[in-house]
Amino acid sequence: MFESAELGHKVDKATYDAEVPKLREALLDAQFDLAEKGKFPVIILIGGVDGAGRGETVNLLNEWMDPRFLQTHGMGDPSDEEMERPMMWRFWRALPPKGRVGVFMGSWYTWPILNRALGFTKAAELDQSLERAKRLEKMLTDEGALIIKFWLHLSKDKQEKRLKALEKNPKTRWRVTKRDWDHFKRYDKFLTIHESVIRHTSTAEAPWIVVEGEDARYRGLTVGKVILEAIRKRLDEADKKKTSVRAAPLLPPIDKLNILETLDLTQKLDKKKFEVALEKYQGKLSMLTRDPRFRQITVVTVFEGNDAAGKGGSIRRITGALEARLYQVVPIAAPTEEERAQPYLWRFWRHVPRKGRVTVFDRSWYGRVLVERVENFCSESDWMRAYGEINDFEAQLTRHNTVVVKFWLTISKEEQLRRFKAREKIGFKRFKITEEDWRNREKWDAYEQAIGDMVDRTSTEAAPWTLVEANDKNFARIKILKTLCQRIESAMKKLK
Amino acid sequence: MFESAELGHKVDKATYDAEVPKLREALLDAQFDLAEKGKFPVIILIGGVDGAGRGETVNLLNEWMDPRFLQTHGMGDPSDEEMERPMMWRFWRALPPKGRVGVFMGSWYTWPILNRALGFTKAAELDQSLERAKRLEKMLTDEGALIIKFWLHLSKDKQEKRLKALEKNPKTRWRVTKRDWDHFKRYDKFLTIHESVIRHTSTAEAPWIVVEGEDARYRGLTVGKVILEAIRKRLDEADKKKTSVRAAPLLPPIDKLNILETLDLTQKLDKKKFEVALEKYQGKLSMLTRDPRFRQITVVTVFEGNDAAGKGGSIRRITGALEARLYQVVPIAAPTEEERAQPYLWRFWRHVPRKGRVTVFDRSWYGRVLVERVENFCSESDWMRAYGEINDFEAQLTRHNTVVVKFWLTISKEEQLRRFKAREKIGFKRFKITEEDWRNREKWDAYEQAIGDMVDRTSTEAAPWTLVEANDKNFARIKILKTLCQRIESAMKKLK
Repeated sequence: MFESAELGHKVDKATYDAEVPKLREALLDAQFDLAEKGKFPVIILIGGVDGAGRGETVNLLNEWMDPRFLQTHGMGDPSDEEMERPMMWRFWRALPPKGRVGVFMGSWYTWPILNRALGFTKAAELDQSLERAKRLEKMLTDEGALIIKFWLHLSKDKQEKRLKALEKNPKTRWRVTKRDWDHFKRYDKFLTIHESVIRHTSTAEAPWIVVEGEDARYRGLTVGKVILEAIRKRLDEADKKKTSVRAAPLLPPIDKLNILETLDLTQKLDKKKFEVALEKYQGKLSMLTRDPRFRQITVVTVFEGNDAAGKGGSIRRITGALEARLYQVVPIAAPTEEERAQPYLWRFWRHVPRKGRVTVFDRSWYGRVLVERVENFCSESDWMRAYGEINDFEAQLTRHNTVVVKFWLTISKEEQLRRFKAREKIGFKRFKITEEDWRNREKWDAYEQAIGDMVDRTSTEAAPWTLVEANDKNFARIKILKTLCQRIESAMKKLK
Repeated sequence: MFESAELGHKVDKATYDAEVPKLREALLDAQFDLAEKGKFPVIILIGGVDGAGRGETVNLLNEWMDPRFLQTHGMGDPSDEEMERPMMWRFWRALPPKGRVGVFMGSWYTWPILNRALGFTKAAELDQSLERAKRLEKMLTDEGALIIKFWLHLSKDKQEKRLKALEKNPKTRWRVTKRDWDHFKRYDKFLTIHESVIRHTSTAEAPWIVVEGEDARYRGLTVGKVILEAIRKRLDEADKKKTSVRAAPLLPPIDKLNILETLDLTQKLDKKKFEVALEKYQGKLSMLTRDPRFRQITVVTVFEGNDAAGKGGSIRRITGALEARLYQVVPIAAPTEEERAQPYLWRFWRHVPRKGRVTVFDRSWYGRVLVERVENFCSESDWMRAYGEINDFEAQLTRHNTVVVKFWLTISKEEQLRRFKAREKIGFKRFKITEEDWRNREKWDAYEQAIGDMVDRTSTEAAPWTLVEANDKNFARIKILKTLCQRIESAMKKLK
């Protein structure tokens, strides 16, 4: 795996001095085109062993390239705001938007490797982390990102020599820490792990580039040229369209039997029973959020449903039971300019709450496999891969003690018509039925199929869908409150 | 001051039950209009004494209004990311965008009041805080925000009764803490301070509304109606234009003597001396940022200057001396959609770095009094008030151990022409001279006057402007590096 990176690659000073000015100009020009055309972000990971020149490489890139369109992220110890969210939150908040370059020293590989080398995790756990990293990178590249992963390598002898040399020089002594020597003692153990990481995560979308780290000139020129070529190649390709789906089509609706049609929409709750139940479950929800254990979990709820199915009213029955400072309702409308410059999950990651908080999404990331699918706002391959990406996203949340509660509110086509007509008679503008609502209604069948596929593919054990029969508002609201209480209760019981 | 809020206001249940549904409908409708027209944000502060119903009021607003367009901020203890920035950073990051409502429990008044009541600060310091609060609110309202400040009051007897009642009820017992009783013991002291705060900060733009807190129905109806009326009134006004400047005009350029013309642009540094000096000051800057004391300060540098004055090259000479993960270069271009929905300083606040970091602004908030003034992108009253607002902003930074270093790079009109022509000959697109550059050049005199006013009005002791003679690039780069080193050094010396 590291054979080519132990050959003793070297570049002499004359060659270097001749090459660098051209390379710099070309890099700046590529960066300018990238910023101007702005179609994709460039994510550069700089990994490798201590002393192999990660820091110097990052500094060199900052010197060669235009620092206005490049951001470097040190990714040292996480802040408390970061600790209260899933590990990936800090990377999502640092992702470069389209047209920019983000350089990461320390990446989603850093902690899995360290934890394994120091014996905190088992081999199987490392494998799991690597699978997750691969899926993340696949998603980013599918969303258009260019990912360039460098691994700076040194053989054991060379690493020892390098650390000693750095220690000898008073100007660089500060860079060698006790931790570096501790790691050096475990060189062989690290090597095995590094090899496994590189083997498992060198994918077609985002291969590792292993670079011999000893000679600074060779290292710098190699890294610079790889980046230049990668950006140029992608810029040339950017104009070409590609929307090939190689997958088989999803389950066709042969017999029109759909999961939604198995629901009993006649279920009702009369006003008296409703009021008793409402007090009971709102009181319970209120008490649960005041339990000291609640501070160790996070709650994310998702509301999806037919137009006029009563999402707003159901949400207010939840928020009415909560301290106002504990929750946030996030209505999902069209993405903003800053959101459009990022992968589609970015605008949801930014609202992931800290511990002890509740976030209610009024519509959500499921728009990708519902409206975007039905209305052809994205390509088939985009929404096809979204099922897996969404499951990965929710799995990250649930692994971090987040209770993910997803409600689909179903009403019958007749009930919707009744509500639309009733709303048209009301004066208040906020209930206005728009042209769009009527248009959506015409696509009822297409939506039903999309909903069925969504439930089949994203109802997981950790984050199941709750289908809510919503023809009767009282029945729906109680079912929602009750489900939410149960989920929070069971999550708190599982805490150590 | 509190007379009307100790009269024993009450609303009977029948009246309340009759009024509330109408009020809720009207509030929702107003909120809908606000969201749809989207011209201004609504900032609601809920202050007052313990037990006067701040929490209930906030929850009530969340129940009555549409939680999708309303955000509540608890503003408890700051997180570590917030502690590393000026106090106001956490409020800036929580400000509602245009069209939305933000409810703040705890505000920029909370800590000044507490610190004074507990004897940590003197009366004069409280006064200073209040002046700052007033200027902040003036700026926000000038930027179009609607600020509604409620103060919920209870007389001493009533507060005691209320706290005891809350304690007696098992359902509300948790809400009364030891701190509440500690504060109660200091009721008179707090009262004096509250009175002073309300008197000093009840301005024409943002008056305090003191509401008697005892009767929940009276309190709720009053708060709801004030909010409704305020939003409605502003919505009606929103269409009317108002750009009246009542101030005298600034210093006219009678004799054409301008501060920029006092600069000796013939100053030069030959290549050899430059290279020696460059190594010296880059080395020094590098050492300074590695000093342990550097972790207690923050560095914000601003680069402004004529087109083609060499800002980019100067910035690279600074970043070249820094660890890449310690700095960020923020190029200021046209604001994004999310930025346009906020006061103009918001997009700079969001980039204020934490401790031990350097942020370089390539162009900055001074655009307001330069390009926006000269090109009439904002009204005269807007840029006239910007001088004071900018000084307030920078004062907040410097009070928080931030070194604010501002460079204006000056070249002569002839030198600019020479550089423009030279650039036109270069193939690289990034150096392209645009139509806009030529147009700016035609407004040379207007810019000169704007620059003079800017320096006169915003060069403060804590955040002075450094005018850089930039006809010779070497001279300019060394002057910049040297100044930056001096400023950092002197800031570190002042640390305790």
